[in-house]
Amino acid sequence: MRAVVLFSGGLDSSTCLAVARQDGFEPHALSVRYGQRHEHELKAAERIAQAMNVPLKQVALDLRAIGGSALTADIDVPKDAPMGGGIPVTYVPARNTVLLALALGYAETLGAQDLYIGINAIDYSGYPDCRPAFVEAFEKLANVATAAAVEGRARYRVHAPLIQLSKAEIVGLGTRLGVPYALTHSCYDPDAEGRACGHCPGLSRRRDLRSHRLLPEVNPC
Amino acid sequence: MRAVVLFSGGLDSSTCLAVARQDGFEPHALSVRYGQRHEHELKAAERIAQAMNVPLKQVALDLRAIGGSALTADIDVPKDAPMGGGIPVTYVPARNTVLLALALGYAETLGAQDLYIGINAIDYSGYPDCRPAFVEAFEKLANVATAAAVEGRARYRVHAPLIQLSKAEIVGLGTRLGVPYALTHSCYDPDAEGRACGHCPGLSRRRDLRSHRLLPEVNPC
Repeated sequence: MRAVVLFSGGLDSSTCLAVARQDGFEPHALSVRYGQRHEHELKAAERIAQAMNVPLKQVALDLRAIGGSALTADIDVPKDAPMGGGIPVTYVPARNTVLLALALGYAETLGAQDLYIGINAIDYSGYPDCRPAFVEAFEKLANVATAAAVEGRARYRVHAPLIQLSKAEIVGLGTRLGVPYALTHSCYDPDAEGRACGHCPGLSRRRDLRSHRLLPEVNPC
Repeated sequence: MRAVVLFSGGLDSSTCLAVARQDGFEPHALSVRYGQRHEHELKAAERIAQAMNVPLKQVALDLRAIGGSALTADIDVPKDAPMGGGIPVTYVPARNTVLLALALGYAETLGAQDLYIGINAIDYSGYPDCRPAFVEAFEKLANVATAAAVEGRARYRVHAPLIQLSKAEIVGLGTRLGVPYALTHSCYDPDAEGRACGHCPGLSRRRDLRSHRLLPEVNPC
């Protein structure tokens, strides 16, 4: 059985890919280039998909036209700021709704019924579309929105296996499953050569993991 | 109050734009270039938005990468074939889910709470994402998926004002509201210069309307 895994090349979605395989699926990775400023993220996605021997489909979508986030519009990424305390400026309006919609279309084309998304309700508590209520609402939508579901050929499931895990638990899980974390990245705001900024919230979390010897030191990003 | 109106430049979405204004909203049109082969559709969208004095935002999304439809992949558009009898090959997997997701993101950025989509359950009975159950499920999703809804700043509504109307009723409604139908198009498979193919289901419906003197003859498409 095939499954579509939303895949950015970061820690969480790389772990998600390994979990989908562990669950017995043949994972198909879907990366969406949504006009984010960090193109290096997509190169990481290619390296990891290759290392994990998973087919990778890339879709282009210019969310910058819609705007509203530090990751897609010309708003500064916050530096050395703690996460939490309301919805962060890195929140992209309706991002996970758009990503799951694309995953659903791809799943219908592939004949897959299972969608994986590496969202996390703990580390991203400020993001409304990283909560279990969001996952349940999307699953209900998927089962009335598609030809496969309406014709009784599919019953879609949305899997968010990391949703209740801490970052340390995610990396522990992925390490057991052989995720090549040295190829992943975390920086929200690298320079043109893909070098980490050194200060953003993504890196701050990665440094925490390193300080607890949970992550390898190979990739500086 | 602003509203986001999904807008292709065809008969239905042009009518929808006029209905949103009639309902008291300031309509903002959103066109998604989803890799469809008929680029002329988007030129029509520009002409109509200008004629109706409505701001138009265009977003690029390459749904061809996902495939699975005669409108986005290399599958022949059916000619002189009746509509109905199962799901047509022109069905795009999860299309309206993707379009509403983008409209939702745009609405959040604009501070709008109302989304309009010109779907129709009668003429498109074979499309699962043109039914009231789909609209209701998306509205529920929108109200758990976004920062604005979760923080209590918005209660999203999805309007599908044409969903139970016949094509003749739609054109009658739009004519009363002053929709410039002469600028719209219907052909699914025009040539490189935008000339109508003469045989597709979209044109067949348009011919029916003309034969009942419901549509002007100006635009051959």
